Amino acid sequence: MDDVHQAAERIAPYVYQTPSIPSEPCSRCLGCEVFIKAENLQHIGAFKARGATNAVFQLDEQAAARGVVTHSSGNHAAALARAAALRGIPAHVVMPSNSAAVKIEAVRALGVEPQFCEPNAESRQRVAEQLQQQTGATMIHPYDNPSVMAGQGTVALELLQQVENLDVIIVPVGGGGLLAGVLTAAKSIQPNIAVYAAEPSWADDAYRSLRSGRIEQPSRYDTIADGLRSPLGENTFPIIQHLVDDILLVSEEAIEQAKETLLKQVHIVAEPSGTVALAALATSFPLCTGKRVAVVVSGGNIDWPTK
Amino acid sequence: MDDVHQAAERIAPYVYQTPSIPSEPCSRCLGCEVFIKAENLQHIGAFKARGATNAVFQLDEQAAARGVVTHSSGNHAAALARAAALRGIPAHVVMPSNSAAVKIEAVRALGVEPQFCEPNAESRQRVAEQLQQQTGATMIHPYDNPSVMAGQGTVALELLQQVENLDVIIVPVGGGGLLAGVLTAAKSIQPNIAVYAAEPSWADDAYRSLRSGRIEQPSRYDTIADGLRSPLGENTFPIIQHLVDDILLVSEEAIEQAKETLLKQVHIVAEPSGTVALAALATSFPLCTGKRVAVVVSGGNIDWPTK
Repeated sequence: MDDVHQAAERIAPYVYQTPSIPSEPCSRCLGCEVFIKAENLQHIGAFKARGATNAVFQLDEQAAARGVVTHSSGNHAAALARAAALRGIPAHVVMPSNSAAVKIEAVRALGVEPQFCEPNAESRQRVAEQLQQQTGATMIHPYDNPSVMAGQGTVALELLQQVENLDVIIVPVGGGGLLAGVLTAAKSIQPNIAVYAAEPSWADDAYRSLRSGRIEQPSRYDTIADGLRSPLGENTFPIIQHLVDDILLVSEEAIEQAKETLLKQVHIVAEPSGTVALAALATSFPLCTGKRVAVVVSGGNIDWPTK
Repeated sequence: MDDVHQAAERIAPYVYQTPSIPSEPCSRCLGCEVFIKAENLQHIGAFKARGATNAVFQLDEQAAARGVVTHSSGNHAAALARAAALRGIPAHVVMPSNSAAVKIEAVRALGVEPQFCEPNAESRQRVAEQLQQQTGATMIHPYDNPSVMAGQGTVALELLQQVENLDVIIVPVGGGGLLAGVLTAAKSIQPNIAVYAAEPSWADDAYRSLRSGRIEQPSRYDTIADGLRSPLGENTFPIIQHLVDDILLVSEEAIEQAKETLLKQVHIVAEPSGTVALAALATSFPLCTGKRVAVVVSGGNIDWPTK
């Protein structure tokens, strides 16, 4: 918890305190009071700005001067590029060759040319390690890194300041960095709060891990929620296992439906991974009847069809 | 200004203090610091909730019991229906038969069945006046009503609290309720702030009115910004004439472009009228180089194509 408080102070000048938007249409429809923690409005369009900024600004001068390196198909790549630019240090970013065009462009717009690798975990790891050895840069893992997890936890700090008497928080889970950070902060400040994770049925590895007691691997990689295809990490899993109230599975159809609701009723753009918490609330709404519920919309970067 | 302060206090329990979102991509692109005052995230999806709520809660008990009536093709209709429901009084809403489906549905979702009229100003006026005579309800004009104008002015109060050292505010102008309210509040609190109005070239009546010194009528009604097709009012025009720094015209293409920027870079949904302030900044950006600029995104209710 101290790490989360320190992260909040460290990243305050660089990160936007996103709003918790009350939604009357969602509240009417779901029978609870719904607040949308809109991390799609965060800098680089996702909560990943928090953890990456915390990790970069936590480095000592010497390590920082050698730069940072990561592998990411998505928002962490842009987040690290931005954080490194803010600190004035080099960033090396390895991206799978099939990454979404919008996410590649986002990294380039921040002045970093990504290094491409084959679209599999081995190639990502290998190319990133090579870069690390060549440059002496510090590896900043997208989620299984304590500084990153502490940074993501600031989402919960803000939520509990912004919404009084909150009963439930629902958070998407991929590798578990956001979930572990939110659990740490929320349960420390308000031990009786319920925190549910939301996960696509097509990427139910966290759900299975919670039940088996060890880190399970995804069995397929085709959910539309491309940010949630990673397995849990050695650092994130124990916190999640210890603190999460449950993991709620959602269908691909529910993800699509939540995206439409956010566009038409809340007037925000969410990427598929970002809609999963609302999809879980819509799927499991009797769990929350009459309660005050925050759903974290984790990001808004989607590949728009070209005309 | 006292009216705006009183409005802020009166509507506080019912209206959302929308965020002023900082946009780094827009700032980089336009050479100034851009903040988006996101009234598309307001209840009913538009700033109109402010003015209508202020007008409804300002009525004395006797008048309130007889209800309220208005004519509106758009967001004011839903705003008045919501405000009346919150106070527990009847609302009568006259809508042109060609109103956007999403706006008709919004009124119905709030429990009010609209009364339809021919799509012209005479028919709107006549049907609304008939309803008023039949019911004794108080007419709440969509913009040319001092209570409504004071309510809309709370947008500027919040902006100046949320963004320090703001240099410029850009606001869309249709009938001028929002603009007159914002001018009153902003220039009273910070006399040296610049407030520009943004108006489609295809609905340039306010621009011409400012130059001729009298209320000019629109010469065409086909701008995509359907919320900005009204002429200025007897109450709004003198304030605008006295206080506005200038009126900036924008093309239909610039409106479309600003809508895309808001979707892809800021991750919010704006209706065409809601994008006009950003379109004006993009068109006239040298005016604002190096400054801190707030653009008001006035609403987010758009008719989505059915699949």
